[in-house]
Amino acid sequence: MNAARAAGGAAPSSALELPYPYLLFLGDTTEPAYAKTAFGLRDWVPERCIGEWACEGATVTTGLPRLAPPEAYAKGARGLVIGVANAGGVLGASWVPLLVEALEAGLDLVSGLHAKLRDVPELRAAAARTGRRLVDVRTPPPNIPVASGRKRTGKRLLTVGTDCALGKKYTALALARAFAARAVPVDFRATGQTGILIAGGGIALDAVVADFEAGAAEMLSPEAAPDHWDVIEGQGSLFHPAYAGVSLGLLHGSQPDVFVVCHDPARERVVGYPDYPLPDIPETIELTVQLGKRTNPAIRCAGVCLNTSRLEPGEARALLARERGRLRLPVADPIRAGAEFERLVDSCLA
Amino acid sequence: MNAARAAGGAAPSSALELPYPYLLFLGDTTEPAYAKTAFGLRDWVPERCIGEWACEGATVTTGLPRLAPPEAYAKGARGLVIGVANAGGVLGASWVPLLVEALEAGLDLVSGLHAKLRDVPELRAAAARTGRRLVDVRTPPPNIPVASGRKRTGKRLLTVGTDCALGKKYTALALARAFAARAVPVDFRATGQTGILIAGGGIALDAVVADFEAGAAEMLSPEAAPDHWDVIEGQGSLFHPAYAGVSLGLLHGSQPDVFVVCHDPARERVVGYPDYPLPDIPETIELTVQLGKRTNPAIRCAGVCLNTSRLEPGEARALLARERGRLRLPVADPIRAGAEFERLVDSCLA
Repeated sequence: MNAARAAGGAAPSSALELPYPYLLFLGDTTEPAYAKTAFGLRDWVPERCIGEWACEGATVTTGLPRLAPPEAYAKGARGLVIGVANAGGVLGASWVPLLVEALEAGLDLVSGLHAKLRDVPELRAAAARTGRRLVDVRTPPPNIPVASGRKRTGKRLLTVGTDCALGKKYTALALARAFAARAVPVDFRATGQTGILIAGGGIALDAVVADFEAGAAEMLSPEAAPDHWDVIEGQGSLFHPAYAGVSLGLLHGSQPDVFVVCHDPARERVVGYPDYPLPDIPETIELTVQLGKRTNPAIRCAGVCLNTSRLEPGEARALLARERGRLRLPVADPIRAGAEFERLVDSCLA
Repeated sequence: MNAARAAGGAAPSSALELPYPYLLFLGDTTEPAYAKTAFGLRDWVPERCIGEWACEGATVTTGLPRLAPPEAYAKGARGLVIGVANAGGVLGASWVPLLVEALEAGLDLVSGLHAKLRDVPELRAAAARTGRRLVDVRTPPPNIPVASGRKRTGKRLLTVGTDCALGKKYTALALARAFAARAVPVDFRATGQTGILIAGGGIALDAVVADFEAGAAEMLSPEAAPDHWDVIEGQGSLFHPAYAGVSLGLLHGSQPDVFVVCHDPARERVVGYPDYPLPDIPETIELTVQLGKRTNPAIRCAGVCLNTSRLEPGEARALLARERGRLRLPVADPIRAGAEFERLVDSCLA
């Protein structure tokens, strides 16, 4: 079972034709945090990942076999994915000759960077010459409507956070997988570049024009059968000084019946904003209900996911138990899974 | 005294070089509500408006002299402004020959429509041939940063609404004018196309990519002298099912010290969204304080502006007095002005 297959593909409106299996490209990365797109693909869609490739001097590895593009192609790869999500989302100049090599070996190029593949003249020329595609997954679809605010059929779950980058995507993927394991009809709905690459569809909500933000969220999660769940990847935080508007548009357009709060217990300040303390979990629940009920009066919090990756197993267990007692809600770490995570799934589906 | 002069121009970052005085173009409009850009310019910067022009069959008039482009040019006009804001923001095919005539008479074209002048091949060709400019004011500036969340020097006022299109721009313009009349240093900061045309600068916040919404609001209202006020035109409503994200990004990035709530007492439902009741004024104040204090803990509500244009003077006076008693805040109609509006200005500056 894997999340992308569990998802059963995204809605036609937001589906992308992605050329997998993939060769994962790590650029010249020496910092593991910058390779999170490659790690996300390896962790969630391993059957789509044939191998990895990188510039000389790169030290980060996914553990997959290192393959040059002709070898990867021979083993079935059809796309090279830029697995790097560096600061600024830029495309390294030193990568370009290697990307041209990949095109010449028969691989399409796929990128979720802010910088667009099609804006690099050498890549455009090589793609035209070889008949290969340049796929920029961060480009939103055309003709996103203004949100209608009309209630849609089907059930929806949104992961919300106390900050950026603390597990909203992993939580949504883990919940979608758990729903599928219980034979609940479910789609994972991706809202960021890594999620889109994993799901094979979705909309990069951070690249949508503000007036159409809630409309894009409506489009991403269309009407469905009454017992069907969309599990939607959250973005940002309602308390974030730069991205709260994105989070609110996503909340309103998603009309979630259920949300799960994602939090990193080791984090005290908004990343990159030392003047901004992180909100606590109860106030995050309260504000999400308060704002979310505007488009779905039945919204409720099903529980909390804590990112305990920095803790020892014993410490993590103790913390999860303590938080469960304090919040009187299911509290789990989706990466550690186990009985507590199953109780969170029960609560979501209750 | 007029608002644009009171404003003293927008910040260099968001200033536009607009070719005024203007000839106001009314297209083929027969519905006055669709000519609100022309009326806004006539009401707020009459000294920049030389005359009006329209297609045959148009019945709406601003009351300004009707002038063909060569006449308008001879009287000093340098730009033709599309004064129409129709549903969908589209450029009428029947307008194009007249717009070409204007270019040939020496006028630049200025538009705040969603549709871009530069996307019409005939206009692009005619502009190139005549050496004239096509100015699309709804295009945001390049390189808008992600919001920093850092407190800026100077004072800021934001108009917020219970819905779209009920007086946030007029209120902000009237307050900026009143501040200037009291010799308070002030800039009106425009966030929509009509406001931008009136002020000669600003950023169309509904056209900014969502991740940069709060950053655009920070850019629009930069650091200033401690006694200087930016009076910022609000957009949408925190309760709007489609646009709340825009409103929240603008609130966070503006970091207002003071806000004024704008409301239409005759409106019970969000325009175009019959399932959505309008929020009441106290809950609008409460939510604006709750969310606004994240980036400015000192935020306060200075009062309320009611759009009483549908009421007789006596009815309007009675309603304003009743609301004042109920809300225990200054309540005025900026269009009717008078002593109550001055008390609202006192409250803003207190």
